[in-house]
Amino acid sequence: MNYTKIDQYISDHLSDSLAELARLCAQPSISAQGVGIAECAQLVGAMLAARGFKVEIVPTNGHPIVYAEAEGASDKTLLFYNHYDVQPPEPLELWTTPAFEPTIREGKMYARGVSDDKGHFQSRLAALDAFKAVTGSYPCRIKFVVEGEEETSSASLPGFVYQNAEKLRADACVWEFGSVDHENRPVQYLGLRGICYVELTVETADYDAHSGLAGSIFPNAGWRLVWALNTLKDSGERILIPGFYEDVKPPSARDLELLAALPDDAPDLLTRYGLKRGFLKGMMGGPEFQREAVFVPTCTICGLTSGYQEKGAKTVLPAKASAKVDFRLVPDQDPEDIARKLRKHLDAQGFEDVRIDVLGTEHASRTDPDDPFVQMAIRTARDVYQKEVIVAPMVGGSGPTYPFAKALHVPIVTVGCGYPGARVHAPDENIVISLFELGIKHTAHLLGEFAQG
Amino acid sequence: MNYTKIDQYISDHLSDSLAELARLCAQPSISAQGVGIAECAQLVGAMLAARGFKVEIVPTNGHPIVYAEAEGASDKTLLFYNHYDVQPPEPLELWTTPAFEPTIREGKMYARGVSDDKGHFQSRLAALDAFKAVTGSYPCRIKFVVEGEEETSSASLPGFVYQNAEKLRADACVWEFGSVDHENRPVQYLGLRGICYVELTVETADYDAHSGLAGSIFPNAGWRLVWALNTLKDSGERILIPGFYEDVKPPSARDLELLAALPDDAPDLLTRYGLKRGFLKGMMGGPEFQREAVFVPTCTICGLTSGYQEKGAKTVLPAKASAKVDFRLVPDQDPEDIARKLRKHLDAQGFEDVRIDVLGTEHASRTDPDDPFVQMAIRTARDVYQKEVIVAPMVGGSGPTYPFAKALHVPIVTVGCGYPGARVHAPDENIVISLFELGIKHTAHLLGEFAQG
Repeated sequence: MNYTKIDQYISDHLSDSLAELARLCAQPSISAQGVGIAECAQLVGAMLAARGFKVEIVPTNGHPIVYAEAEGASDKTLLFYNHYDVQPPEPLELWTTPAFEPTIREGKMYARGVSDDKGHFQSRLAALDAFKAVTGSYPCRIKFVVEGEEETSSASLPGFVYQNAEKLRADACVWEFGSVDHENRPVQYLGLRGICYVELTVETADYDAHSGLAGSIFPNAGWRLVWALNTLKDSGERILIPGFYEDVKPPSARDLELLAALPDDAPDLLTRYGLKRGFLKGMMGGPEFQREAVFVPTCTICGLTSGYQEKGAKTVLPAKASAKVDFRLVPDQDPEDIARKLRKHLDAQGFEDVRIDVLGTEHASRTDPDDPFVQMAIRTARDVYQKEVIVAPMVGGSGPTYPFAKALHVPIVTVGCGYPGARVHAPDENIVISLFELGIKHTAHLLGEFAQG
Repeated sequence: MNYTKIDQYISDHLSDSLAELARLCAQPSISAQGVGIAECAQLVGAMLAARGFKVEIVPTNGHPIVYAEAEGASDKTLLFYNHYDVQPPEPLELWTTPAFEPTIREGKMYARGVSDDKGHFQSRLAALDAFKAVTGSYPCRIKFVVEGEEETSSASLPGFVYQNAEKLRADACVWEFGSVDHENRPVQYLGLRGICYVELTVETADYDAHSGLAGSIFPNAGWRLVWALNTLKDSGERILIPGFYEDVKPPSARDLELLAALPDDAPDLLTRYGLKRGFLKGMMGGPEFQREAVFVPTCTICGLTSGYQEKGAKTVLPAKASAKVDFRLVPDQDPEDIARKLRKHLDAQGFEDVRIDVLGTEHASRTDPDDPFVQMAIRTARDVYQKEVIVAPMVGGSGPTYPFAKALHVPIVTVGCGYPGARVHAPDENIVISLFELGIKHTAHLLGEFAQG
């Protein structure tokens, strides 16, 4: 297929796309704070309806999911997963221009959500617009799932996907984002780790006591927590929960081959984060580092809180202590099973008094790097970006890919307009307009090849 | 000596004493916030000068110390240690009447500092007034050290005492407070534990990282802190720092005899604090519990802080973590030595990256229960309160007694108007007026006996 006209249309109508994206970004949709959610769901629905999609705003126990579908020239079906919610904009004072007043300067558009995830969503619409304008129709059947809880752990999404598996049936799925690396090379991400995020809480008394009075005789919630945590992982990073590693599937020879081909980002991480003692285990980079970064499950303390935390000394013996702990999981670990093993382990270690609240779970999920749709995404990226494509068999983060992979059996690829300087979740979130244009073109080329293939 | 006239004078002039105390309490003097300090030091100085004392307001690196002395009938010297500073009044909304508007209701006076320590100080003045009115002079030479940093750890006091040992020379010392127990029996406290209060801090990076990206490869400040803390004390409460216990002097047979005679407050503590798993080591009360509570040094986590501590899940790998830890020490442990041993231990355990900030130190200090002045304080208390006196050879808390004991070689006793319901450091701090009157009388009787003895 010849994409000259499509590409030309995309370039010619770029300012229209940016204007529509600015309107979408001007609508706050902060899931954590419940701000602007209904309005944004309506706006997204209207944007799709205006393009001939049949739209449903599906209520959930949390924020509504926008579901939409439209027919196309071929009877193959492509599913787009996106989300309309955004992270809170705070701290507001660190924004150069207000978070919900999208602003273009020096080739970038700045706004909360412009990269995560409204810019990616807009790029799908712009690619579809180009197809319709040039060929008279969409190239294939298109389905959209646009949820409103991605930034608060997608609690309603898995149930929606499992219950609507028939309706959502598709041949392939384009994930919510895509990105280039530091050298503007497109990256294809083929897997996400799972997660089991828990809060551990100990309460030893009704209220804090004076440490002089109580230090020798009262149980101390802070100490109970420290001792309990210490049983979870040793200082060599080995997780000590019995059976924790038993379902871990090691990376395949193909995975290791892909890891070996990845650019080494270790030196950049070391400087960017100012790691005072280098990486764990004395690692310096290289394939072993790449493998460790994504194919090894973790147990991370995300937060600790107990007693007096202000400046100076207060002689208090805390009645309560808690820790946020996140386990990043790899195939085929099951987050519910990990939570059960954690409970059993704490009980066995004498920490029945440590309460576990599971705050979020997701399964790891992967797409076969040799799947034809993945190869198509790589080939079209190479054509559009005119660069070699980085293929990452797995990344360290998590996301709700598993229900799509499990219920719909679709390959999942990443396509979009992200880049390492996007300041996602941070003040001055932005997209680079030239990368936005490339992301639209890549989406269009992938759509065209998929519909034909 | 016959105290009938003295006692009568005290009772007749009680309302004058309360009025003067109310004026003193109406003057804020919040050392932690630097509020009203200079004004309160001046007021205390003026109160002493009006009584014929030679007063010096001595500047320090922190808040000034009010020093005063006056001659008396005998050439023996009694030293009163008090402090004019008070705890912050917050949370203000929990006060029934404003913290700095002293109010009398139902036989109590309410105000910030009325018990800690302005009421005790006022009771010294009222006893001296009675002596002067009835006998024409003070019974002996009197010295006052009234500091302004007690609530923020008395940083300037030890230096002042050591540098002015000759000037402060005295035969005995009355400590800043005294109290009755739950059954209104006067208590004589004969020792305070020492303290070494430290903050332990780990910084692994310049800023927090995404736990998905960094969980397997970045050192985690939270984990470093947990592992470091875990090396300090085992779950059987044994402190693991080499040499920590080597200077511990066990209680004497006399101490154990005194402990055995103490009322058992274990059942009260258990209910009052709602201890969910009882006391440490399965203790239930009794002499072993009493001994453990005060003669055993501690390592208490007072606070933990790291990473994300709000509601819900945030997937962050913290760059920084810190703990406040308080070691309560017993004779003859040296807090500076303990800080050195802690550093050495952490280094030996591979935690050179854990920074130690020493936020406060005090030595344990004791007075011989068989000292004649102690026996005099007990005998006069029995006379005034008409109850048996509880003699506690040691209490769990700490205070700056050591420089007085070490530099001046004085026995130190506790006399005053405190009681268990005083809400010291809390909203609705108060004194019971009848106990205030008894405290004045006890001070007067002790003064009289001391001057003669």
